[in-house]
Amino acid sequence: MILGLGKTPAQTAAIAAEIVRRGSTLLVTRASREAYDAVRAEVPDATYYPDAAIIALRQQDVSPGKGTIVVAAAGTADLPVAEEAAKTAELMGNDVCRLYDVGVAGLHRLLGERARLASARVVIVVAGMEGALPSVIAGLVSVPVVAVPTSIGYGASFGGIAALLGMLNSCASGVSVVNIDNGFGAATIASLINHL
Amino acid sequence: MILGLGKTPAQTAAIAAEIVRRGSTLLVTRASREAYDAVRAEVPDATYYPDAAIIALRQQDVSPGKGTIVVAAAGTADLPVAEEAAKTAELMGNDVCRLYDVGVAGLHRLLGERARLASARVVIVVAGMEGALPSVIAGLVSVPVVAVPTSIGYGASFGGIAALLGMLNSCASGVSVVNIDNGFGAATIASLINHL
Amino acid sequence: MILGLGKTPAQTAAIAAEIVRRGSTLLVTRASREAYDAVRAEVPDATYYPDAAIIALRQQDVSPGKGTIVVAAAGTADLPVAEEAAKTAELMGNDVCRLYDVGVAGLHRLLGERARLASARVVIVVAGMEGALPSVIAGLVSVPVVAVPTSIGYGASFGGIAALLGMLNSCASGVSVVNIDNGFGAATIASLINHL
Amino acid sequence: MILGLGKTPAQTAAIAAEIVRRGSTLLVTRASREAYDAVRAEVPDATYYPDAAIIALRQQDVSPGKGTIVVAAAGTADLPVAEEAAKTAELMGNDVCRLYDVGVAGLHRLLGERARLASARVVIVVAGMEGALPSVIAGLVSVPVVAVPTSIGYGASFGGIAALLGMLNSCASGVSVVNIDNGFGAATIASLINHL
Amino acid sequence: MILGLGKTPAQTAAIAAEIVRRGSTLLVTRASREAYDAVRAEVPDATYYPDAAIIALRQQDVSPGKGTIVVAAAGTADLPVAEEAAKTAELMGNDVCRLYDVGVAGLHRLLGERARLASARVVIVVAGMEGALPSVIAGLVSVPVVAVPTSIGYGASFGGIAALLGMLNSCASGVSVVNIDNGFGAATIASLINHL
Amino acid sequence: MILGLGKTPAQTAAIAAEIVRRGSTLLVTRASREAYDAVRAEVPDATYYPDAAIIALRQQDVSPGKGTIVVAAAGTADLPVAEEAAKTAELMGNDVCRLYDVGVAGLHRLLGERARLASARVVIVVAGMEGALPSVIAGLVSVPVVAVPTSIGYGASFGGIAALLGMLNSCASGVSVVNIDNGFGAATIASLINHL
Amino acid sequence: MILGLGKTPAQTAAIAAEIVRRGSTLLVTRASREAYDAVRAEVPDATYYPDAAIIALRQQDVSPGKGTIVVAAAGTADLPVAEEAAKTAELMGNDVCRLYDVGVAGLHRLLGERARLASARVVIVVAGMEGALPSVIAGLVSVPVVAVPTSIGYGASFGGIAALLGMLNSCASGVSVVNIDNGFGAATIASLINHL
Amino acid sequence: MILGLGKTPAQTAAIAAEIVRRGSTLLVTRASREAYDAVRAEVPDATYYPDAAIIALRQQDVSPGKGTIVVAAAGTADLPVAEEAAKTAELMGNDVCRLYDVGVAGLHRLLGERARLASARVVIVVAGMEGALPSVIAGLVSVPVVAVPTSIGYGASFGGIAALLGMLNSCASGVSVVNIDNGFGAATIASLINHL
Repeated sequence: MILGLGKTPAQTAAIAAEIVRRGSTLLVTRASREAYDAVRAEVPDATYYPDAAIIALRQQDVSPGKGTIVVAAAGTADLPVAEEAAKTAELMGNDVCRLYDVGVAGLHRLLGERARLASARVVIVVAGMEGALPSVIAGLVSVPVVAVPTSIGYGASFGGIAALLGMLNSCASGVSVVNIDNGFGAATIASLINHL
Repeated sequence: MILGLGKTPAQTAAIAAEIVRRGSTLLVTRASREAYDAVRAEVPDATYYPDAAIIALRQQDVSPGKGTIVVAAAGTADLPVAEEAAKTAELMGNDVCRLYDVGVAGLHRLLGERARLASARVVIVVAGMEGALPSVIAGLVSVPVVAVPTSIGYGASFGGIAALLGMLNSCASGVSVVNIDNGFGAATIASLINHL
Repeated sequence: MILGLGKTPAQTAAIAAEIVRRGSTLLVTRASREAYDAVRAEVPDATYYPDAAIIALRQQDVSPGKGTIVVAAAGTADLPVAEEAAKTAELMGNDVCRLYDVGVAGLHRLLGERARLASARVVIVVAGMEGALPSVIAGLVSVPVVAVPTSIGYGASFGGIAALLGMLNSCASGVSVVNIDNGFGAATIASLINHL
Repeated sequence: MILGLGKTPAQTAAIAAEIVRRGSTLLVTRASREAYDAVRAEVPDATYYPDAAIIALRQQDVSPGKGTIVVAAAGTADLPVAEEAAKTAELMGNDVCRLYDVGVAGLHRLLGERARLASARVVIVVAGMEGALPSVIAGLVSVPVVAVPTSIGYGASFGGIAALLGMLNSCASGVSVVNIDNGFGAATIASLINHL
Repeated sequence: MILGLGKTPAQTAAIAAEIVRRGSTLLVTRASREAYDAVRAEVPDATYYPDAAIIALRQQDVSPGKGTIVVAAAGTADLPVAEEAAKTAELMGNDVCRLYDVGVAGLHRLLGERARLASARVVIVVAGMEGALPSVIAGLVSVPVVAVPTSIGYGASFGGIAALLGMLNSCASGVSVVNIDNGFGAATIASLINHL
Repeated sequence: MILGLGKTPAQTAAIAAEIVRRGSTLLVTRASREAYDAVRAEVPDATYYPDAAIIALRQQDVSPGKGTIVVAAAGTADLPVAEEAAKTAELMGNDVCRLYDVGVAGLHRLLGERARLASARVVIVVAGMEGALPSVIAGLVSVPVVAVPTSIGYGASFGGIAALLGMLNSCASGVSVVNIDNGFGAATIASLINHL
Repeated sequence: MILGLGKTPAQTAAIAAEIVRRGSTLLVTRASREAYDAVRAEVPDATYYPDAAIIALRQQDVSPGKGTIVVAAAGTADLPVAEEAAKTAELMGNDVCRLYDVGVAGLHRLLGERARLASARVVIVVAGMEGALPSVIAGLVSVPVVAVPTSIGYGASFGGIAALLGMLNSCASGVSVVNIDNGFGAATIASLINHL
Repeated sequence: MILGLGKTPAQTAAIAAEIVRRGSTLLVTRASREAYDAVRAEVPDATYYPDAAIIALRQQDVSPGKGTIVVAAAGTADLPVAEEAAKTAELMGNDVCRLYDVGVAGLHRLLGERARLASARVVIVVAGMEGALPSVIAGLVSVPVVAVPTSIGYGASFGGIAALLGMLNSCASGVSVVNIDNGFGAATIASLINHL
């Protein structure tokens, strides 16, 4: 698994080829189309998921998870990070249920999704701006919540700091946090939990 | 109106006496009992409200507000700031409705108070930690919401910064923010609105 | 109402079409001309206000406000945010009076506008750099002041933090604050107040 | 479950009595001995664990977890937070294995505990200063790691910020983070995972 | 000249004795009464100014300044810093005019002091909270303004950072800034200017 | 005098034309060549100083200063800010002496310029990185030192914060500070002092 | 030795020519290919090392170091900084041993390099993200460790602050730190030590 | 070697006894007299150095260093940290030369100590406030400089951040930095270098 950020397409392709040669599932995050073009030259079967900015090739080393991972997000602008999480979780063998457009300022939509939230074995919550969604969702479920702050926002959001701090200070129990925009990390944790 | 913080009891008492002499309503915030003892020697009719840390003497210059100001807060530890806001608003001539113990991690209590929220002409929301309550309440009402971050919390709450940033980045419209722990300021604004 | 920031023109146009279909007034902020071109293909009657970076189409759901909203700003560079506030307020049914070029370092111009300030039911003050204008104006009026820090400045203005902190610490009462550059948010609050 | 911080002994005791009356397990964190004295007057069977600063009374509502939770910490000064986590996890029905004194600057001790690490269903890692321990441990196990930064340190540790940032930026996958000194929160998440 | 902060009374007294022995004017800032007691044992003629927290003994090495230094401050709580500046300037041989209680939220008082401001050769402006006073005063005078942020305030004043940033970003020209609470430093600069 | 930053060439040209029409000296800082082209169309006699990024046209309203302003800077990368200060000071009627390439890590060059430093009526010191030069120079002269931090540096210089903090904490007396990169502001203060 | 950052190719070339004329070894860091083209016109024998972004021409003034400097780094993205350090050290006359790809999350690779680490007279450790590598390596060696945080990372790495703070708070003794991305500085220190 | 900070006297004494039992030199930093009383009960031969806040008992495991370590500091208030460094270095077997009272604002004193600086094999520089001393000293010597920022200062020194940033951004080469107030850490590095 490769973090595409800060690597050239050529570096990415070389590491990708090595991973596939070892028989491991390939998963490149923050991957540009240029990186995909370079990877495809080495790994022709690799697929590019542009909404998630992920290059992947699933191999035999992935076993199925036990339950469903719900990925919840509030807004259109958070979707790239939510998709990075959802697609990563799927590639790791998990059933994923996407709940997008469930913000805290419109509780009725969120409350309308209670049944699907209740079906989750673990919930990933992706939110920018004030980052309040994990607290509200954690109050509605009794499974672990992995919160992902996003860099979406402007002014005093400070590139995701406001959301990050909000999530770290969540008044609801059961919430842990990963780095800003780290959809991949959240999916890895959720998948570890879902495979226990 | 005097901010008690950073003034000696003697300084507070001298300014208080001068205010009362001019026929103005006296309102000292962040007032210790020592300050009250000093003030009472000069202004015998002044009252001390320990929950709000306010010394006050209402005079003729206060006119009644038009509607109700709801003061909402989530937790026990936020009550001193909430009371500073509520008592200030009352002393400025407003009807005040207190909704304490309505946190975002227990939505049912908050939703159970919808009718009272709907009756407000303006809502003051006091919250520490992640400061998510104003966003949720602003999604439930269609009147102005004045948000007060509190310094309650620990670690990455940074003395109220997390709550402050959360409120400034609220995804709900209609939310404006005052300084950390500034219950008095929120009440002043709410009262100005309620007297329009 | 759509925050254009972080959305593609296609995403903006799709949401805009949906809003208009529901009969609601359309208001897109931080909108580029490219976004406008995409919206116009879906909503031919939409108008673009380049000074405010707003795309809008007013519909039947807007009722007139009761008084005048004054929008005050100090400098040329703050005008895009001031216009976002002023145009938003107008589209929400309010009479708006613009007082631009009234900085704290040239008090005579500001004092010369006292009559117009006194006519306001609520004042929006837009300021970058040290953000001192709201304190001075709040000392001259007795209505609510909504302060908007802007990201204008350099060096130790830190993208609007200096102005934001200045406004949060205002020594004048009656001042509440919104996020940096959030002219839309300020207008929404002012309009809520003006419709009470 | 009560966060003792910011509450008076009397407030704590009142809430504690109410919790026990409802038949729920009582767990007060950051509890002083004064708080314990107040609680014991209301709840005579409550126990005080001074190393963890916890007051507790376990009731029927706790079910046993499935595996072992390992709590790892590097230094003497981090033990209060580690004990808050370990004791909380035990009170929630989990088997807990404590691995204290396993810092990154003395890898041999850590590597000597590999077997016990491998036996965990979830690992809580408590660390101050540079907060590097979670990364190293996550590289040695294949279960979820919940990282707790502590406020231990001086100078550029900034009350736990250095450790918090270190953990959020962990290069190892499977690490999620809770607030500084939040041993209780980490234990709650670990217990949720261990009860799945 | 000695900064008393961070020195024991004994250390202060020893340095003070040495300074006087060399024939230089003694000036200890941030001096406690305990420090004064220790100094007086070595330098019996030294005087203590409690409002300014200064111990001093003026000697022959001080020459008179050419004009008047105005020291302006807004609030009661800023007076210790203002007095440190004013008393230091006097001890350095300057005529000092104190303008206290001239805040930006009450412009009429400030405007009423225009004549005295106009008489200054240099102005020291001491302000906490939003730190707006230097900008306003610099717009009224045409001499150098030395701004001193104070640590007065709470919440988002961050111990004087808000005032410091406000002053550094002053939109008025002619304003330079010293460290938070550094009344002594401002007076030294003003005195250098006044002796040119 | 116009801060070019954040204004379009057209806005700059319009304000410039107005200033010249009033008979005032024109001085535009942070001016691009595009801005100059626009200004020249309105004010044909205006001159562009590319090293200082200044557009100017001196008029009758400038009187000569009394002494020399020394502008000192340490490194090649600080020269744009140093030139903004030096050229501004010259346009305001002052004799300016430039001491470039006098860094604290090469004391001999600095000590070799003692005579020229001693000739100054006021010194402007421009420095990035650790910002130590003002302290060292203030220890060598007995006139006011105006310190200008620059945004030069990388990593932990944080765009000039390191230099700014260094200067605010100068252990030498007589140093006051302006905003990061604010050569214009320093020159204005120095010129005010030099015209006293 | 020249820091290329913030200088134009022409400025760089002029200083380079002057250095070579004095007979000193030329070393330009953060050098673009454009800068190299300009330098080569003046100093035809200069070499460009693109991986290290260094232009150099070694001369007679370099003496050999006594032992080996190990340069360790964890990830592909940190290599430009590691190469700046390694190449600088070589140009200063030192034997350099590169240990790249030895991250804390894969201890086996690091432990497999123990022999080479033990051979070092001084170790330079380059790391981004959480910056934990210096602590782990310092626990394995008994020579000085110079730690270089890199700006590699995203979100809460804050451009290298997380790594910088982690290194400053290292629980291992023997670690000192240089500025973010300052491979050159680390090499200079290591070379000074290696020449003792 | 024990960091006393954050440990109780009893914890300190227990670890101290264990260290001595193993035959290792005992060195407790940040040690209070209470800690010493507890240690002495277990280790009667231990000595307390109050100026350095160090408890120590030197044993056979210390070998002599090769040259002299100079410890330089500017001010009285920095002495506790300087003494922690100097005493630690001595206990580790090094000859130490103390140069106290050599600040950058009084260059003549510093230049008068050139000979002693030149005699050093490594220099430790301790400085608070703007932290400029290491840059100046590094310009005078050609051996490694280990810089220790101290928390001495007020206002914008931010507990040592200003000094820390100043040192990290040193324009002089050969300077590396340790944590704020970490005299022990600097001495350890200097001793490692001096024993090479």
